[in-house]
Parts: sequence; structure tokens; C-alpha cells
Amino acid sequence: MYTLIKQEGRARRGTFTTPHGTIQMPAFMNVGTAAAIKGGVSSLDLKELRCQVELCNTYHLHLRPGDDVVRALGGLHGFMNWEGPILTDSGGFQVFSLSSLRKIREEGVEFRSHLDGKRIFMGPEESMKIQSNLGSTIAMAFDECIENPAEYDYTKRSTERTARWLRRCRQELDRLNALEGTLNPRQMLFGINQGSTYDDLRIEHMKVIREIPCEGYAIGGLAVGESAGEMYHVIEQVEPFMPKDRPRYLMGVGTPANILESVRRGVDLFDCVMPSRNARHGHVFTWEGIRNLNNEKYKLDPLPLDESCQCPCCRGFSRAYLRHLLRAGEMLGMRLLVMHNLYFYNSLLEQIRRALDEGRYEEYCRRWLPVLSTRI
Amino acid sequence: MYTLIKQEGRARRGTFTTPHGTIQMPAFMNVGTAAAIKGGVSSLDLKELRCQVELCNTYHLHLRPGDDVVRALGGLHGFMNWEGPILTDSGGFQVFSLSSLRKIREEGVEFRSHLDGKRIFMGPEESMKIQSNLGSTIAMAFDECIENPAEYDYTKRSTERTARWLRRCRQELDRLNALEGTLNPRQMLFGINQGSTYDDLRIEHMKVIREIPCEGYAIGGLAVGESAGEMYHVIEQVEPFMPKDRPRYLMGVGTPANILESVRRGVDLFDCVMPSRNARHGHVFTWEGIRNLNNEKYKLDPLPLDESCQCPCCRGFSRAYLRHLLRAGEMLGMRLLVMHNLYFYNSLLEQIRRALDEGRYEEYCRRWLPVLSTRI
Ligand SMILES: [Zn+2]
Ligand SMILES: [Zn+2]
Repeated sequence: MYTLIKQEGRARRGTFTTPHGTIQMPAFMNVGTAAAIKGGVSSLDLKELRCQVELCNTYHLHLRPGDDVVRALGGLHGFMNWEGPILTDSGGFQVFSLSSLRKIREEGVEFRSHLDGKRIFMGPEESMKIQSNLGSTIAMAFDECIENPAEYDYTKRSTERTARWLRRCRQELDRLNALEGTLNPRQMLFGINQGSTYDDLRIEHMKVIREIPCEGYAIGGLAVGESAGEMYHVIEQVEPFMPKDRPRYLMGVGTPANILESVRRGVDLFDCVMPSRNARHGHVFTWEGIRNLNNEKYKLDPLPLDESCQCPCCRGFSRAYLRHLLRAGEMLGMRLLVMHNLYFYNSLLEQIRRALDEGRYEEYCRRWLPVLSTRI
Repeated sequence: MYTLIKQEGRARRGTFTTPHGTIQMPAFMNVGTAAAIKGGVSSLDLKELRCQVELCNTYHLHLRPGDDVVRALGGLHGFMNWEGPILTDSGGFQVFSLSSLRKIREEGVEFRSHLDGKRIFMGPEESMKIQSNLGSTIAMAFDECIENPAEYDYTKRSTERTARWLRRCRQELDRLNALEGTLNPRQMLFGINQGSTYDDLRIEHMKVIREIPCEGYAIGGLAVGESAGEMYHVIEQVEPFMPKDRPRYLMGVGTPANILESVRRGVDLFDCVMPSRNARHGHVFTWEGIRNLNNEKYKLDPLPLDESCQCPCCRGFSRAYLRHLLRAGEMLGMRLLVMHNLYFYNSLLEQIRRALDEGRYEEYCRRWLPVLSTRI
């Protein structure tokens, strides 16, 4: 259940109660694709990194180790040893981006595994079944994530189908939740808004799916190559039509600036691989701007990545040491940088919530937007 | 200073006091080649893994990031954030095994870096200088690690030169320790016994080097392809000629059984990459024997790697989860398995010390030797 605590402009401070604990919103989910955070970070580490919600990928887990295996080990919570909320995506995005030879029909999508070429069929019912086996807190609806740019006519037909698929997801998840032996009988469902960059299709689709009762609604199909301005425009168009009493999740976003700007436009929930992916390349987020640790100037630098950061990396290690680890290809370097970046994102969201609590979110954005995007 | 507390047959229970704390012996050193344990394990993790001593490689650190860089960051202790004892090898072993186009002269060895082909010269003085910059607790003497098998005449000439090199190491380290601004003015030196598998050369060499005052003595040039029987034979030959009041270090050894058998023959100190290397291939040491986690039978196994183990891996994760991580190529899998194997080795040495304390080491060996080598 979503409770709105405070509002500043369109920006929302709220809480979302789930079977696995209450999420303070706005929140950032830490991405553990294959039931593990890239960079050697465990679910026990995530606690120390102040993570609230972990996100896992249905497509990857269905292929390996198989959702039946995860179910037998107590679902994702038991498998990863994580007690907090978990969101699973629907598999849709990966089916459309990773797999080959896909064929879309009303029933669903036939595709080949990117691992072994095996032929697989996934539709709304299959996706719900898999996510039910994974036992996540929040299941995402199975949708078509349309390529960008997309033709108007195709987008219209696709969003209509995605709406029909959402009805089937709702029905199937209700059925699965009611079955005896279901891992998480209170598993929640989030519907996903699509419509590419066409305002009328986005709005029409949102109006249709909000009539299908879901515990939350997401905006999908963004952060796929369009400009930040186009993305903000879509949020502004769709947001007024999203239920006020449900969390709004902007999928796959983004930079610290993207998050600040999207919170400002009414978004409550985010996920992005950026903190871990950038860390693996030596790019770290700090409260002074973005550092590239490959830079020669850090060779003898005894300071931590960020002098104000309390993360396990900054409490123990210098820029010079971390730079050395990166250059030597030591796993430890990646792990420490990933930990710092995740801690930074989780702290950023904490600060955003505090600013909203104290009614100074606009001031917070003015202060930090220019800093956080700067390369130093 | 080495203090012998108790003896059972030739097996020794003792303590070794260093400028960075007292080492309970017998002890196993955890290998952090390039100032980091492979598998994403930090020096802070090592504390939790009950590690007493970390070993780093002079050759690797000289090439990258450079011992001048390490020195500028406070030596290895400051660089890695590890307060306990650190042993650095001399670089000799890597010069002879990794580099190309080496030329050995009385002065030292000229070789090319395996990283960029750069021409480098290293002799006893250079090795001491580098290790002084690294500021380790214990510096190893620069020696020639002869290939196995080696001709008798070559071995004789080489061990004579290694003895002359030890004198130069002692002299140079004394000089460096006395310099103002030296990082660790109480840096210790261990001499290294060589002589391939020739008993008379081994013994003669030991007799010569024990006259050169060192804080400890090592047996080198073993675990390079000879049988375990040959190795034990060499230890048995050399041990009676090693000073009783100095620690004895068997370099690069070995399996749990090798360690049990070598302690029995009077060895106090070990190092080996086996626990971390085997972990990366899914092979884990347990108190029931050696498990291969790639095995299909662990697919749905909810138990920890070892039910009696208190390591961070066993306290949190199942065999099924770890097997999945390995198969998915997730760094987290390697990290957790490396942590378990290092914890296992450090625990094994703790148990060995307890058995010696309680005068039941022979019984301990009888109980555990057959178990620890079994593949299960
Ligand atoms: Zn940090
Ligand atoms: Zn363990």
C-alpha cells in the first residue's frame, strides 16, 4: 500500500508497504540480474550499502539456474539470502533486446535463448508463472518494449496488445497467488505504460491500464536512446493520468540528474545498472562530481574516493590503491568501486527523501544538479 | 623473535614476534600477489577470515604500481590497509618463472618485464631496496630458484652464488634499515635454502647460510614438480641443520596433507595460492573432504559448503546458490568460495596449533590426513 506523506510541486515523499517490509520512497533499486550484484557484491553487503530493494531479472533466472531451482531453494529471498523487498522484471525487455529470432503473436513471444539457442515461448501467463516461482515481492507485467524510434501505427497496435497482456497478467497472478503452496501469496503486480514518444498513445495507454487494478504502475520504454528532454516530456504527459495512490516506477533510469529531475516530475521508484557498470570502468560518483579513476592524477592520491562518504570502500582505501587495483585487473578494485557507487546512489535517494521531508526539494535540486553531472 | 612453546616429535608450536604483531606458529600466509587477494577479497575481509600474515609479491609490485608509489602511500601496510605482519618474497621466483630473456650474472639477473617487455636488472641490493620501499615485516633474500630437475654441477654453483647473494642481502638490508626515513627500520630478513633434490648440496647450503644471521630461514625450490615424497625427504634432510630458535618457512606449500606432513617434520610457516586458485575453479576444502561444486548433485543442495564452517560464505549461502553463481560467471561466486577456502586453511592451522598445545598432534594427523585428501 502506497501512502503519500508529503508533496512539493509534483515531487512525492511516500511509503510503500509490501509483504517484505516498507519501502521509503523515492527509492532506488540495486540491480542483481542473475541473483547477484555484478562486482562480487552479496545481499549481505547490500545491507551495509543501505539498499532497500533488490531487482532481479526473470529472463536470466528462467534460463539459469531455472525458476524451478530458485523455487526449490525458497524463492529468491532464500536463494540470495535477502529478506527485504525484491522486484522482478517480466523478462519482456530481455526477450526483445537479448534473444534472437523472436516472433510476436497475441499469445506471447517465441524466441531463442542467448545462452544456448534453445527455443522458448513466453507470454503473460508464462512470465507470471516464472515470477511466482521466483517469489519476488513485486512482479512486473509482461509487455512489449518497443524499439526507439517506432512507427506510430505499430506503436498503437503494440500498446493495445500490451494492455490486453496486462489483463491476462492480473488474472494469472491472482490465480497463482490463490494456489496452495505459492511462495508469496501476496505477490504484487505493476502494470507498465508504453507508447514510445507519442503523447496521445502514452496517455491513452495509461488511461486504459489504470483501470486494471495493479499495486503500482511503471513507465517503460524510456532510457532507450531518446534525449533526456524527450524522456522528461513523456513523464510530464503521463504523470497526471497515473493513480495518485500507487507508486510510479521509471524503468532503467538513470544518472543522478535524471533521478532528481524525474522525482521532481512525480516518480517514486528507479533502477539502473549505471552505478555498477560505471564502477567497473573506473567512473565513480561523488559529491564533488564524477571521477575517472583511470586518470594519472590519482596515482599518488591518498584520499578516499569521496571524503564525505561513509561506504566500506571510502572508509578503508585510497584513490591511489583503487587505481592500482583497476589497472592490475584485480577483482577487488571492481568490488570496492561498485560498493561505493551503490552506496552513493542509495545515499542520494536518502538525501532526496530528507529534502522532501523538510520541504526544501527545489533548493536541493538547485544545489546539486550542477555538481553531480560535472566531470572532475 | 621466535619462541618455541612446545614440541611433539619434530613438530613445533611457537610464537614469532614481529614489529607488526606476534604470529602464532605454525601459520599459513594468505597470498595477495599485487597487494590484493585474488577473488575480490580485501585486507579488511582477511581479518574476518582469521588471517595472521599476508604475503605480497615484490616482482609484481615493482612493475605495477611501482614500489616508489607504494612507499609514497605508506608502504604496503598503508596501501592495503592491513596492520598485521606482511611478508614479501624477493622477486627471484617470478624473475625465473615469468620473465623472458633473463641473463644471470654474479651481480644479479637481467630480464624483461612480462607486462611490457621493459629491460630490468635485479640483484640482492635491488631486491632489498624494493622490499624496503614496500616496508614489509619480513623481506625474503634474493635467490635463484633452480628449475627441477637440475644438473648437479649447475645446482652446486647456483647454491654457492645464492649464499653469496644472501650475504649481500643482509648487508644491504642492514644499511637500508639504518637510513633515516626508512618505512620499517626493523624489517626482518629470511634466508632461503636451495639445492634442488641433492641431499648433500641442500645440507651444505643450509650449513653455510645459517652462519649468516637472519631472523628466519626458508626452504625454497620445492613444490615445483617433484613428488610429495621427494619434498618430505628434503625437509627431513635439511631440518636438523636449521637453527632451532628461528622460524622455518616452506615456500609455496601446499595441500592440507602437505601442511600436516610438513609441520610433523618441523616446518612453522607456509604460503600457497591453492586455496584461492582452487576456489576459482569450484573446488572447495571441507572437513568432509574436497568438494567439486560444478557437480550436478549440488544443483538443489540447500546446505552450506561445510556444515561446521563459520565463514562468511557458509553462514549465508547454499551450495545450490554458489553453484549457480559459478555457472553464471558471477564474481560473487569466486569471492565467496575464495573466502571459504582461506577460512578453511586458517582454521586448519588453528586446529594444528591447538592439537600441538594439547600434545595430540600425531592423533590429529591420523584422524584428518585421510579425510582432507578425499574427493567427495
Ligand atoms: Zn564511498
Ligand atoms: Zn565456509
